[in-house]
Amino acid sequence: MPAPVVAEPLVNSLRINGQRLWDSLMRLAAIGATPKGGVCRLALTELDRQGRDFFVAQARAAGCTVRIDAVGNLFARRAGLDDTLPAIVTGSHIDTQPTGGKFDGNYGVLAGLEVVRTLNDAQIRTQAPIEVAVWTNEEGSRFVPVMMGSGAFIGEFATDFILAQQDRDGITVGEALRSIGYAGTDAVSPKSFGAYFEAHIEQGPVLEANDTTIGVVTGALGQRWFDVVITGAEAHAGPTPMQLRKDALLASSALVQAVNEIALDHAPNARGTVGMLDVYPNSRNVIPGTVKMSVDFRADDDATLSAMDAALRATATRVAAKYRVEVDIRQVVYFAPQAFAEPLVQAVRASARELGLTEMNVVSGAGHDAVYMARVAPTAMIFVPCKDGISHNEIEDARPDHLEAGCNVLLHAMLKQAGC
Amino acid sequence: MPAPVVAEPLVNSLRINGQRLWDSLMRLAAIGATPKGGVCRLALTELDRQGRDFFVAQARAAGCTVRIDAVGNLFARRAGLDDTLPAIVTGSHIDTQPTGGKFDGNYGVLAGLEVVRTLNDAQIRTQAPIEVAVWTNEEGSRFVPVMMGSGAFIGEFATDFILAQQDRDGITVGEALRSIGYAGTDAVSPKSFGAYFEAHIEQGPVLEANDTTIGVVTGALGQRWFDVVITGAEAHAGPTPMQLRKDALLASSALVQAVNEIALDHAPNARGTVGMLDVYPNSRNVIPGTVKMSVDFRADDDATLSAMDAALRATATRVAAKYRVEVDIRQVVYFAPQAFAEPLVQAVRASARELGLTEMNVVSGAGHDAVYMARVAPTAMIFVPCKDGISHNEIEDARPDHLEAGCNVLLHAMLKQAGC
Repeated sequence: MPAPVVAEPLVNSLRINGQRLWDSLMRLAAIGATPKGGVCRLALTELDRQGRDFFVAQARAAGCTVRIDAVGNLFARRAGLDDTLPAIVTGSHIDTQPTGGKFDGNYGVLAGLEVVRTLNDAQIRTQAPIEVAVWTNEEGSRFVPVMMGSGAFIGEFATDFILAQQDRDGITVGEALRSIGYAGTDAVSPKSFGAYFEAHIEQGPVLEANDTTIGVVTGALGQRWFDVVITGAEAHAGPTPMQLRKDALLASSALVQAVNEIALDHAPNARGTVGMLDVYPNSRNVIPGTVKMSVDFRADDDATLSAMDAALRATATRVAAKYRVEVDIRQVVYFAPQAFAEPLVQAVRASARELGLTEMNVVSGAGHDAVYMARVAPTAMIFVPCKDGISHNEIEDARPDHLEAGCNVLLHAMLKQAGC
Repeated sequence: MPAPVVAEPLVNSLRINGQRLWDSLMRLAAIGATPKGGVCRLALTELDRQGRDFFVAQARAAGCTVRIDAVGNLFARRAGLDDTLPAIVTGSHIDTQPTGGKFDGNYGVLAGLEVVRTLNDAQIRTQAPIEVAVWTNEEGSRFVPVMMGSGAFIGEFATDFILAQQDRDGITVGEALRSIGYAGTDAVSPKSFGAYFEAHIEQGPVLEANDTTIGVVTGALGQRWFDVVITGAEAHAGPTPMQLRKDALLASSALVQAVNEIALDHAPNARGTVGMLDVYPNSRNVIPGTVKMSVDFRADDDATLSAMDAALRATATRVAAKYRVEVDIRQVVYFAPQAFAEPLVQAVRASARELGLTEMNVVSGAGHDAVYMARVAPTAMIFVPCKDGISHNEIEDARPDHLEAGCNVLLHAMLKQAGC
């Protein structure tokens, strides 16, 4: 590690400005604010432009240079003492769900900005440069795929493919980027990243349930998503005796139960969810002929995901025979489980302990830009609690002291990597 | 019974004209015919007017007088030798579902017309008058309530209430009746009915499964319909561990299973169906926060219906506790079980046997005009098989020989009551 340019005790006592972080969050949340207290700032809209302009102005005021790549990702850079070193990067996204909250994504970006400001205030120069990334369209609400910017950045998607994606009105990503003035030209290579950190609200209830401030995220669950179609036979509810029915909803209810049991069989980290279920013809006195449902399996290792897949298919065979229906199962999404880099995970834990904060290991059940970044650079995440575990909702909320604590952990974890 | 005016052997060998019945069915089915082979002839539309005009013209050609009451019910009357005797009535409806078939309702009306023609051909005069009724808006597709005409006729609904009912465009029943020229003025009392028969396709699979031609309908199942709302908590499918969920769909799937089990516990005549189920927010990676579903219970006695109701509520209490959700159950429809008149049921069975037809007891799981009529007059129904038990569907189908057989049973059951 390069020699520190400030005394160790000064660095150890360094703290971010919690009020300034909160004020930044509230200023950004005003752009696209909804009457219910949330934010609607869809990717690459005029409101997104305003949010980006706010970030860029703040970053430049903090002395950063700002680059924009071809899919609109932003990188605000604070030069290092040795600017040829790979950058220590943090970031997240500022696009929201249509009924999104103030903290999802926005917290990770503004926590990065607050780290830069804190270093400026303390006149600390780091050996490696520090960057704050704003990834384009993480939410996937207006354009698919989700985690678009980070996925393109690491080469998961070709840039041309991304630029050609259309929203519901037929507007492409390329057109939208140009219309808001964020179609960049910078080629940014992931090889320039020495480490990537992302601070984020947990979006789940575990930290709150355990009365713990910092979630040391050890990795992200892998995901297998399925489309399931159950085909029985429509018939009148009155004249059709029970034993002559081919009730697609009754069969699907056995599958919904099974999805839950399969997840419980792989406790504690496996998840199984049927979030979407559509009944046809969906009439009170007609036995359902068809049900279409989703299955979302998540687990922290691939063997478990495969076992859950096999269990689902075995159950489907039994259900089809028992209820005399057909069950068709198609996998539509697969994300491999992603462990985070052990040295960075330990840096997060050590920082939390040094700060006297309660911490615990957690896994990320949701996708994040960090999950893509982990494929190309050492990566870790820091979770802080959110109220009742609620996110993707206008009532999403988080405590200022928790947000401040997470940002302090981010600061010290980044400093351990950047050197000072 | 009055002395017969024709020799017994002649009456016994009397048969309807199956080809003529079939031709009438096909001519009526041409009014509102759909490309898929079904019929769309909604109540009180221009097409319904054409269907009514067809019936009225045919009935008058067969020597009947036709009356129209205030809600548009039609009564085609063939005078009796003693025209002061209560009429022996048969009938059904000619309105259809939007994607209805050729036989539902139409068969019962045209079978009645064929009985009149057969008696005309054989120059048989009955002691009591014979009437063929066409009930307004049995299907309830355009206007609610269903079984509107027969319900108004027996006093279940006030005439003014019925005439004020509106379709989706705000057109009232009264306006629609006037616009098609079927706003009648005749006051017709149910007290003038000596007996009511209704021939109908089964709309279920029992006769076909038992290779039986005639269903001797002993009564109609009672019905209890419920609206059930399950309230859990929306949450992200990824970050929310299984044990911290309040999954409304998982809870509802246990209720769907229970509805089936409760019906099976009261075999063979009880029915339990969840036909409608809506999930909120119905998104792949969101644990459902709310599910709204219907429950349709049917049984042939009220004690069973009450026991099913109690079992549903007990299950709901267990499900609410197990899945940490709220379950709200509201009864929205109740029809009492309705036994048909034993002498008429026996007349149907005797006629079937005399005709050498296979017959079996069945219950009507669906509502029919006959179920209302049974409250005010001795009533029975005759079922004939329909292909695969399918009805309320454009592919609804029935065999000409079955339709002919059912009409012969109707003829002889009516003759037993009307006297000849």
